[in-house]
Amino acid sequence: MSKNVLILPGDGIGPEIVAQARRVLDLVNQQDSLDLQLSEALVGGAAIDADGVPLPEATLDAARAADAILLGAVGGPKWDTNPDFQIRPEKGLLGIRSSLGLFGNLRPAILYPQLAHASTLKPEVVSGLDILIVRELTGGIYFGQPRGVRLKEGNVREGYNTYVYDENEIRRIGRVAFEAARARDKRLCSVDKANVLEVTVLWREIMEELSKEYPDVELSHMYVDNAAMQLVRAPKQFDVMVTGNMFGDILSDAAAMLTGSIGMLPSASLDVDGKGMYEPCHGSAPDIAGQDLANPLATILSVAMMLRYSLNAGATADRIEAAVSQVLDQNLRTGDIWSEGMQKVSTTEMGDAVIAAL
Amino acid sequence: MSKNVLILPGDGIGPEIVAQARRVLDLVNQQDSLDLQLSEALVGGAAIDADGVPLPEATLDAARAADAILLGAVGGPKWDTNPDFQIRPEKGLLGIRSSLGLFGNLRPAILYPQLAHASTLKPEVVSGLDILIVRELTGGIYFGQPRGVRLKEGNVREGYNTYVYDENEIRRIGRVAFEAARARDKRLCSVDKANVLEVTVLWREIMEELSKEYPDVELSHMYVDNAAMQLVRAPKQFDVMVTGNMFGDILSDAAAMLTGSIGMLPSASLDVDGKGMYEPCHGSAPDIAGQDLANPLATILSVAMMLRYSLNAGATADRIEAAVSQVLDQNLRTGDIWSEGMQKVSTTEMGDAVIAAL
Ligand SMILES: CC(C)[C@H](C(=O)O)[C@@H](O)C(=O)O
Ligand SMILES: CC(C)[C@H](C(=O)O)[C@@H](O)C(=O)O
Repeated sequence: MSKNVLILPGDGIGPEIVAQARRVLDLVNQQDSLDLQLSEALVGGAAIDADGVPLPEATLDAARAADAILLGAVGGPKWDTNPDFQIRPEKGLLGIRSSLGLFGNLRPAILYPQLAHASTLKPEVVSGLDILIVRELTGGIYFGQPRGVRLKEGNVREGYNTYVYDENEIRRIGRVAFEAARARDKRLCSVDKANVLEVTVLWREIMEELSKEYPDVELSHMYVDNAAMQLVRAPKQFDVMVTGNMFGDILSDAAAMLTGSIGMLPSASLDVDGKGMYEPCHGSAPDIAGQDLANPLATILSVAMMLRYSLNAGATADRIEAAVSQVLDQNLRTGDIWSEGMQKVSTTEMGDAVIAAL
Repeated sequence: MSKNVLILPGDGIGPEIVAQARRVLDLVNQQDSLDLQLSEALVGGAAIDADGVPLPEATLDAARAADAILLGAVGGPKWDTNPDFQIRPEKGLLGIRSSLGLFGNLRPAILYPQLAHASTLKPEVVSGLDILIVRELTGGIYFGQPRGVRLKEGNVREGYNTYVYDENEIRRIGRVAFEAARARDKRLCSVDKANVLEVTVLWREIMEELSKEYPDVELSHMYVDNAAMQLVRAPKQFDVMVTGNMFGDILSDAAAMLTGSIGMLPSASLDVDGKGMYEPCHGSAPDIAGQDLANPLATILSVAMMLRYSLNAGATADRIEAAVSQVLDQNLRTGDIWSEGMQKVSTTEMGDAVIAAL
């Protein structure tokens, strides 16, 4: 039975890195007879330019119909100054996440042994680092109502957003995190600000309730300020972390940067049935867009994640990950992960090398 | 004209570290004829134990009457499980901040050359680090209404908080930050999430407006996820950062931890007239409380900040800072900043050494 994969190149370096990932996907599709049907659509700034909106109906329909989605990256200075807040590239991304119910965001922060030196942290602090951050992606303050900017008495402008979670949303992401921890080192750290925010008091309560169903997983709680500190102080203390949309945005980026090679990190955003959107952790890097300089490996590793989680092709995923490891062993590096003694390659050459390894 | 200083030892290591800071304050008070009247009151868990509430009327009255306040730290596991959210140590701290209008929180993250090795980051990444984080402290999601946990249809519990700022609040903290930047390297980075949260769209707008009044200060904007990443990647790119209460809580702790010696960092929380509360950046460390192990230097440096900002005794502040630097040069270290070859000292011995240096 053939499956549909929708490819959304997006903005900035998105098209370049996705092009390499697509070559990889085309190849393994053929090699392993995966019977995948690939199609492409516009999202973000590219969609604004073509259709006037960041998430055209056609793209949303295609996303709904797909079994899995591969996204490059969205956003760029060109669209940042748009006074209409709804016509921003990010709204395309947020619209897909929310419309498709992709609530479960998995963000691994892994230090590749070949890139150990790339971290700004001392080797002993980060060597062997392997954290999984599970971030809630369709709720919290990102989507809470009411929101906006209004006039108070005296013509004073006031901006407001609402941070809200109900117990079902918390339980749903909690289960994803407990299951992930169960399949790893069985330690889950839930991050909140329960000493200040009521919404996270409920969060903590539900995590405690859930932990009764997962007696084999050790649950701990940490305030978000302390979590940010502990990620810098001793990141290897963590196995799986679970948190809401906003805290997850901040902590997963900090955790990714601990590895020094954010250009290597994929991510998955899953719905209740395991359908998902896959994208690199890094952004659209407008400063180097179109120059064949970007690192395509995070996107290629996102393809591997996609095959494993949404397309039931774990063996193919393993092959891709092994191929990536192999090109690192061959000392090939794009500029972002390059260091003395390594061979600097372009986006395309890195794609070539992975293809060759496969 | 005599001035009143209120001392709030608080919980955990609070009383021990404040005791050493008080010795220092008593000494310079005498040496430099500062005419300071010192008194003490209860706050946090200590106040809950004695009076049933984290911020007794008497403490709040004394705080209002004081010209400056020195706080140790509040909180601990003993009070964390109190089901009544209002009877938590943290509420005492938040109550003082809010009742006294201490909206301007200054959190320096400075790497002491003598402690360069203490950082988990590579020396070249953090040597000479000197960032000032200006955090809004009496608004934002910490104090926004409505808030709570309610029942939705179907008996589903829902927690909610409100992230709100009006333009006056933003302008007020913005001025503090621009003035601080003007007195330093004249670079201000405002941190927001203006691609997602309307309240921070207003924040960014007001910062832009303000920057016209400070043409000598270079203003930039950064999304909070990127700021967390940049603090890990290249922290020395920052001079002054300004942000709201919640983001400031997270980023200032991450920034403090970059130095590896959070036990050295003081902070100030100021009202519109420069009256302030001063406290170490670190917490109440219940695990080492009462053992004469804690580092009193952040509290002693908070005394210096207090003398400079609220008590018009800058020369005395300079003397205290020089004394702290001197004890570091003498290779004296409490456990948290100790390393091979240094002499490990207790809380009291560290106090003795600063007193001797003065
Ligand atoms: C682009 C932006 C809206 C998005 C987010 O904040 O979720 C990004 O930072 C991410 O983490 O995927
Ligand atoms: C104790 C807590 C309420 C407080 C805060 O979140 O503001 C602390 O973390 C701080 O940063 O001073």
